[in-house]
Amino acid sequence: MKRQKKQHWFLMLFEWRGSVLRQILPRLGLMFLLSSAAVYSGGRIGRFHIPLNVAPFTLTGVAISIFLGFRNSASYDRFWEGRKLWGSLLNSLRALARQGRTLTGLPADDERLQQWTALLASCPHALEHQLRKTDAMSELQRLLPAAVCARVRAAHFRPMELTALMAEWVVERQREGRFGEIVLTAFDRNLDELANIIGGCERLANTPIPYGYSVIIHRTVYIYCLLLPFGLLDSVGLLTPVIATFVAYTFIALETLASELEDPFGTAFNDLPLEQLSENIEQAVSEMTGTR
Amino acid sequence: MKRQKKQHWFLMLFEWRGSVLRQILPRLGLMFLLSSAAVYSGGRIGRFHIPLNVAPFTLTGVAISIFLGFRNSASYDRFWEGRKLWGSLLNSLRALARQGRTLTGLPADDERLQQWTALLASCPHALEHQLRKTDAMSELQRLLPAAVCARVRAAHFRPMELTALMAEWVVERQREGRFGEIVLTAFDRNLDELANIIGGCERLANTPIPYGYSVIIHRTVYIYCLLLPFGLLDSVGLLTPVIATFVAYTFIALETLASELEDPFGTAFNDLPLEQLSENIEQAVSEMTGTR
Amino acid sequence: MKRQKKQHWFLMLFEWRGSVLRQILPRLGLMFLLSSAAVYSGGRIGRFHIPLNVAPFTLTGVAISIFLGFRNSASYDRFWEGRKLWGSLLNSLRALARQGRTLTGLPADDERLQQWTALLASCPHALEHQLRKTDAMSELQRLLPAAVCARVRAAHFRPMELTALMAEWVVERQREGRFGEIVLTAFDRNLDELANIIGGCERLANTPIPYGYSVIIHRTVYIYCLLLPFGLLDSVGLLTPVIATFVAYTFIALETLASELEDPFGTAFNDLPLEQLSENIEQAVSEMTGTR
Amino acid sequence: MKRQKKQHWFLMLFEWRGSVLRQILPRLGLMFLLSSAAVYSGGRIGRFHIPLNVAPFTLTGVAISIFLGFRNSASYDRFWEGRKLWGSLLNSLRALARQGRTLTGLPADDERLQQWTALLASCPHALEHQLRKTDAMSELQRLLPAAVCARVRAAHFRPMELTALMAEWVVERQREGRFGEIVLTAFDRNLDELANIIGGCERLANTPIPYGYSVIIHRTVYIYCLLLPFGLLDSVGLLTPVIATFVAYTFIALETLASELEDPFGTAFNDLPLEQLSENIEQAVSEMTGTR
Amino acid sequence: MKRQKKQHWFLMLFEWRGSVLRQILPRLGLMFLLSSAAVYSGGRIGRFHIPLNVAPFTLTGVAISIFLGFRNSASYDRFWEGRKLWGSLLNSLRALARQGRTLTGLPADDERLQQWTALLASCPHALEHQLRKTDAMSELQRLLPAAVCARVRAAHFRPMELTALMAEWVVERQREGRFGEIVLTAFDRNLDELANIIGGCERLANTPIPYGYSVIIHRTVYIYCLLLPFGLLDSVGLLTPVIATFVAYTFIALETLASELEDPFGTAFNDLPLEQLSENIEQAVSEMTGTR
Repeated sequence: MKRQKKQHWFLMLFEWRGSVLRQILPRLGLMFLLSSAAVYSGGRIGRFHIPLNVAPFTLTGVAISIFLGFRNSASYDRFWEGRKLWGSLLNSLRALARQGRTLTGLPADDERLQQWTALLASCPHALEHQLRKTDAMSELQRLLPAAVCARVRAAHFRPMELTALMAEWVVERQREGRFGEIVLTAFDRNLDELANIIGGCERLANTPIPYGYSVIIHRTVYIYCLLLPFGLLDSVGLLTPVIATFVAYTFIALETLASELEDPFGTAFNDLPLEQLSENIEQAVSEMTGTR
Repeated sequence: MKRQKKQHWFLMLFEWRGSVLRQILPRLGLMFLLSSAAVYSGGRIGRFHIPLNVAPFTLTGVAISIFLGFRNSASYDRFWEGRKLWGSLLNSLRALARQGRTLTGLPADDERLQQWTALLASCPHALEHQLRKTDAMSELQRLLPAAVCARVRAAHFRPMELTALMAEWVVERQREGRFGEIVLTAFDRNLDELANIIGGCERLANTPIPYGYSVIIHRTVYIYCLLLPFGLLDSVGLLTPVIATFVAYTFIALETLASELEDPFGTAFNDLPLEQLSENIEQAVSEMTGTR
Repeated sequence: MKRQKKQHWFLMLFEWRGSVLRQILPRLGLMFLLSSAAVYSGGRIGRFHIPLNVAPFTLTGVAISIFLGFRNSASYDRFWEGRKLWGSLLNSLRALARQGRTLTGLPADDERLQQWTALLASCPHALEHQLRKTDAMSELQRLLPAAVCARVRAAHFRPMELTALMAEWVVERQREGRFGEIVLTAFDRNLDELANIIGGCERLANTPIPYGYSVIIHRTVYIYCLLLPFGLLDSVGLLTPVIATFVAYTFIALETLASELEDPFGTAFNDLPLEQLSENIEQAVSEMTGTR
Repeated sequence: MKRQKKQHWFLMLFEWRGSVLRQILPRLGLMFLLSSAAVYSGGRIGRFHIPLNVAPFTLTGVAISIFLGFRNSASYDRFWEGRKLWGSLLNSLRALARQGRTLTGLPADDERLQQWTALLASCPHALEHQLRKTDAMSELQRLLPAAVCARVRAAHFRPMELTALMAEWVVERQREGRFGEIVLTAFDRNLDELANIIGGCERLANTPIPYGYSVIIHRTVYIYCLLLPFGLLDSVGLLTPVIATFVAYTFIALETLASELEDPFGTAFNDLPLEQLSENIEQAVSEMTGTR
Repeated sequence: MKRQKKQHWFLMLFEWRGSVLRQILPRLGLMFLLSSAAVYSGGRIGRFHIPLNVAPFTLTGVAISIFLGFRNSASYDRFWEGRKLWGSLLNSLRALARQGRTLTGLPADDERLQQWTALLASCPHALEHQLRKTDAMSELQRLLPAAVCARVRAAHFRPMELTALMAEWVVERQREGRFGEIVLTAFDRNLDELANIIGGCERLANTPIPYGYSVIIHRTVYIYCLLLPFGLLDSVGLLTPVIATFVAYTFIALETLASELEDPFGTAFNDLPLEQLSENIEQAVSEMTGTR
């Protein structure tokens, strides 16, 4: 997911890293072998000649393309929604940072502002680890005081507990008389926004595309590919293995990529680089509060 | 709808639970029998030879794929909208919980805060039962005091009555002098948001995809499948039952799944797990107000 | 548009009410007759043999399917936007009802609260009749005092006049000292929302899909169907009338349904049941203000 | 773009006004002539027989349909976005009108309220003329006092200057003590909304669909149509001119309509009737402030 | 990306500037040569006759069209999102300008208002250069005082630092007693909005379409084109180079344009004219504050 420089169109044909080719190569090899066997046997299994030609594949090929197109769109939308949520997470934390810096009248080296920065900066890390079901404590211990850290550890929904701590920090500043109810609700509006984003990430991570879709499309694609060599034999003869493997590549690669993007918070090559995004947010928040 | 671990591509071909295969197996069996009969009779009904070949199926196959693709998108959008609404329900109730905890200055063990938590926690249960037209009272009795429970039972729109009770609770806190009009309207904004979400769920549950669409596409798919064996006979001979059943699987499975997802608040395998979501929200709300 | 119970897949094939079949049956009959004539004459008109086969229909069939798919999506989006607007109308009026009940401190049997309820409850009726260009006065007279009714009647945009009356009611309550400017603007925000919804309905009702689209797609579909029998003759012989009528059904039914849904505020079978929605909103508003 | 009554399906086939047929008739005539020449010459140019059949057209026809479908969607989305913006313009100006009428406490015949109405009512006219690059002054002189008119004329972004004048009017009312800062910001929020809408219209008008798309799709469609007669000759013989012209109609009409809708603020038949919308808004605003 | 006047349909066929034709001409030349070689050799490579016909290309052509259609939509959506973000940037800065002019009560020639204008006007320039990774300092030095300029230069996220400076300016005006907390939060809301837009641009610029998609579709298109001449040979003989190059043009041009639009903040012909937009915003902001 790192930004790629634009590649020459010719070199891109031999791209290895960003493609899912590496992952599906064994399956394509199998496809090539199967097709070759079909050519060798003249389209027979034992003595029985498989009576297929290209016609039924034209029929089903369109259907598969359309359904696969639908699955792709749905997966890509999930990927993009995930990215948007993390973009909004940055925006929302930066807005809170700016409010903490300008609306409270605290000087940049005030301890309370540093507490605030720590709460904001630990939020993306806590979320990242919740979404990936890994342990956030090492990151949190680096950023937060021990007492706060213990309270976050005790919570089931850790990023949400951080928003509760932020809300308490804001109310304390109000009680100190640093601002009135109006500024209090301006903070509150951004805390709502932050909580909405965290909730949106939880929703995306917990709700895959209905499993039925994945199964139907997966099955259709693989049965299609299995039968394809027998259908192409009459039409393209010795080239059957090449063409069948090419068609299989198109369909299987797209299906595999769609299933990878479906869960954008995973750790596959094309998923979102949550660690890098978290560090980026931590830096942006610190710069905004002026504590770095 | 539980989160599935990623399955090996080969095992996924034999998936049984998540697929709609189980449900449509009798229809596919019928299809196989019909195709076999067509092969056996040489494409005749009585003495009349059905003069079909693959051409008209190519013609209509594309149309069916596109229209089915449209139906799928519409159903999936409804499913996803339903999920988003329940995600927002969680966000909105958590926001109210956080406001109750931090803006009122009530200690976590205050009885009034526990009333507040109970109102928030019973909201998803009331909504779940309204959407499924089942009886919410056992859940509500567990969470709410008897007097409140009676008032909710008397209402036609029970989740909405809960929002009215929340609004009253907020106004009482304001009259106690715990906050001014500004914080009052900050609560009010989130109550509006909550009511919008409840209204959105009602809308989704009460308005199916226009029935005409379902009928046209259903009819087209099944007539297509009925005629298909006679069209394939010239082209694929003895394999007709296999190919025809394969094509029928693709179309009928997708149509069936689309009609299942169309009503995301139902109780089918691929529908939303409202009970689990409700309990999840109850837990999240309690954690946020600090009463659990 | 009433909620249909799920039907058995077999019975659904013979559905009569929800389908547009009834409406287009004469056209399909014509199609069947035309096809039969083509079979009978051996694809000749007079002595001239129409030199058509299935190839150009494959060519144009895909194009028609895609364009019809586009038209369907656009019409369905309009239908769904209409439904969403009426859903938001309910939400928005309920929010105003809740604000009237809780933020003014008026008891449920106060006459002023009943005026407020009447204003809110008459809004959906006024909108329904404006959208259908029918006369709302009988409904308005039932709900509103004569003086108010006369003022609404005098207005060109009646639902908007109701929002102006609501705004005046709110300002009067503020002048009575029931709340300050902050609560006043909380009401004002919801009145803006309500006015946006009414304006959205007016926009949808006044702006059909560009007429050019309807004409191009309509013409293409019907010319296609007219020529189709001659194209199928070589390929499916005696079955031509059956297949041609089946294809025509798919295309014409979808085009007809799309043109029905395009104007979701109409009175066709698949349009929105505005009367029922209005009554539903009236009931919900009364329940929320506690005046029923 | 006026609302059309629903037409009988048969009469709609001969529709002339709303269709783009009139515009592209010369091109279709050319197509017919070309096809006839191809039939006459037996598919030869000089002595060279053009070796085309229907196969490559099937190949490219699908691609063209999909890309044209994409272009159509993009154009229609622009059209609909334009319509939505003008719908929001009405909503936003009505909201400001209602605020002026109810939140300032000014009587309906107060001169200041008439100034306010004039500012609001001249806004759609100023925008209409900016979008069409015509001269708004005659409309503005009718509505605004000379001094105000001069200041608007001096501005580069005239509708925005009107919003600045509105903001000044509001601030003057606040200085007169008619309301406090809270109501001031309620006006301000709607002025922001209004400015967003004006900015949205400017964006839509200034940013066409990337020109590359138009060129690629235009070129593909016309080259396809140019070659088509030679491809159909073997297949449909004497009917070639009819079929080729029919296919050309479908593709060229859609491409032409898409390019018309792409700029929804233009003056073509299917574009938005901005003049009528402006007058409609003027009337609605006057009714809302009660000055008409 | 400048606004093009509508061109005559015939001249548009020979368009050179706006098209990607210039860019891909060498590849199309290669395609033409390859096809000619295939014709010359009679579809042989050495002595081996490539056994291809049009059938497998029909099969894969549909799939490629659909996937390319998906890629196009995704790229175009990114382009349009980029344009919308810059449209909102204008709106948001204009709103801040209007607030500075009307809510602070500062006269147009006040130095503080000129500082404000300078901060707003330098924002688009700073963003433009950040998105293109070029140096913004010459623009910033023109607009900002040296001290401010130095502080912006020191920041990693320069446009965000400008929003922090704006927030400080607003807080200073509040401390001068020019307005209360309510107007302060009205400014704050627009600063949030501005920061969201800047964050949105960063997100779009940093997150390309998953690289896997680009690779799969790129590879599929080029392998398809490479094999195509051998598939067309039987069908269109001597015209093979013309038809194959035409098909290749359609697919390769679209793929190339999609990859150009994917990054709308680039400097290609069809990308957004950020420099021009920045200057436009600078002018609009100055006009709105009345300092120009």
